[in-house]
Amino acid sequence: MTTPADFSHHVAELDRLKIHYVREGTEGRLPLVLLHGWPEFWYAYHQNIPVFAEHFDVIVPDLRGFGDTDDLPGIPSITDYADDILALANHLGLDRFGIVTHDLGAVLAMDIGRRLPERVPGLFFFNCPNPGVGARWAEADHHIEVWYQSFHRLPVAHELVGLSADTVRIYFRHFLEHWSYQGRMAAELDHWVDTYAKPGRVEGSFKFYKSWAETRLRAAREGPPKLPKITVPARVLWGAEDPVNKPEWRDNLPDYFENVQIDLAPEAGHFVHYDQPDLANAEIIKFFNGL
Amino acid sequence: MTTPADFSHHVAELDRLKIHYVREGTEGRLPLVLLHGWPEFWYAYHQNIPVFAEHFDVIVPDLRGFGDTDDLPGIPSITDYADDILALANHLGLDRFGIVTHDLGAVLAMDIGRRLPERVPGLFFFNCPNPGVGARWAEADHHIEVWYQSFHRLPVAHELVGLSADTVRIYFRHFLEHWSYQGRMAAELDHWVDTYAKPGRVEGSFKFYKSWAETRLRAAREGPPKLPKITVPARVLWGAEDPVNKPEWRDNLPDYFENVQIDLAPEAGHFVHYDQPDLANAEIIKFFNGL
Repeated sequence: MTTPADFSHHVAELDRLKIHYVREGTEGRLPLVLLHGWPEFWYAYHQNIPVFAEHFDVIVPDLRGFGDTDDLPGIPSITDYADDILALANHLGLDRFGIVTHDLGAVLAMDIGRRLPERVPGLFFFNCPNPGVGARWAEADHHIEVWYQSFHRLPVAHELVGLSADTVRIYFRHFLEHWSYQGRMAAELDHWVDTYAKPGRVEGSFKFYKSWAETRLRAAREGPPKLPKITVPARVLWGAEDPVNKPEWRDNLPDYFENVQIDLAPEAGHFVHYDQPDLANAEIIKFFNGL
Repeated sequence: MTTPADFSHHVAELDRLKIHYVREGTEGRLPLVLLHGWPEFWYAYHQNIPVFAEHFDVIVPDLRGFGDTDDLPGIPSITDYADDILALANHLGLDRFGIVTHDLGAVLAMDIGRRLPERVPGLFFFNCPNPGVGARWAEADHHIEVWYQSFHRLPVAHELVGLSADTVRIYFRHFLEHWSYQGRMAAELDHWVDTYAKPGRVEGSFKFYKSWAETRLRAAREGPPKLPKITVPARVLWGAEDPVNKPEWRDNLPDYFENVQIDLAPEAGHFVHYDQPDLANAEIIKFFNGL
């Protein structure tokens, strides 16, 4: 059983902000940047990092406002989050790097892949909340799953959830249990409480939903946006049992990617990398080694 | 400034459950039953009860699971809530009684008015969440307002909100501030904390949303239901500034009532009886005296 202390921790003191990241593996091999989603931080990949370290130069940052990375005043744009990652890559001298993403990390990866395809040889997504989801987010029967995306935009959310370690424990237990296959990720709850009960971390993590709201709601109102297709080779592994990013929503992916292979991961929920680490690790290694 | 102790409190020991209610005014005059909504309890009407007491026999119960009324195991149906009120009326020997309602109280009042029109000379509604709202509840731009209706259906909601007086204070402050005109109802927050921090009261009050969910979601999926029109004379006063039960939604009311007069209340939000007590009191007295 690994703990956070078993990994090699670093802080990049960038002009824009201080980013905490874990780095394992061998410099000189293909750098692989793992981007977490909500309600995560770098440790969500703890079953993947040691395996990838045998093949790649593995960099796992905490996104802005998450884990041990700085938050800044105000609400960042999606581009701000993506530019944080690009600034980290530049700081580390990474010319080209593969990206593995989960959940909201996908939004950043798509932004980077569209803007700077020459920097990214491949994009690997779990359960990709692509713009084609559109009005499906807003379907009446999905309200019971997506209420948190509206709640997180309101001050009452971080005031309530961030009040104490007890409130953090209650709230994050719900998501780790409900979103992982058979609730198994609840076993990690102590690590989540340690991280999210630090001052400002709940509020910082909720900012992503303020940042993303207008894009998501516009797609619900007006239909999926037409965007230039991403040319970077993409691979998607979607948890067949994800209750919130529904696997049916993978049908829109070809509208946004020129070159994408999509498969379902059985016995996996929202957290495929956690629920099915062996499958996830094998597919990621195969994808990036095959580029 | 009134406090809860300034009112005359009673408990009806019914076979089905013990109901707490306040009763003021003169027995023998027209009984007026005031039904609160969420996030309320009888005291939401504290600016109205003393005025009505000069004209009516005023009975103000706490609904099942709210305030000081019993909760029972399981999720009650809407009919259960309505039958609680009918059982109270029978216990008090009320043959005919007017009903004033707010928010979810409207759902009970419509049920009673449809089933037993002979018992009810008139129905007075504030901001009536009628079945014609249908898919408007589910519009993308309304998610930021209605997330709580989904949240309340999940165990995490009462575990988190009901954890302590502090969590109750944070959560209910949001609704009293956001839903009342210029946030003025936040001045009552201490009374709300006293009431909702009692064991089981948050969970009890949230049950209404479990009870109502299927009806609301069916209307969102399939469109407004066709129902026999309610024949009891009805009067609706709708807060022009209600952010959650939007005043535009009053246009469907004639589909559900044979005889209804509808007006907007200016400078009033969700809690018209609280935000504009003089207007609300005058209109209610005029309506029931004119029947």
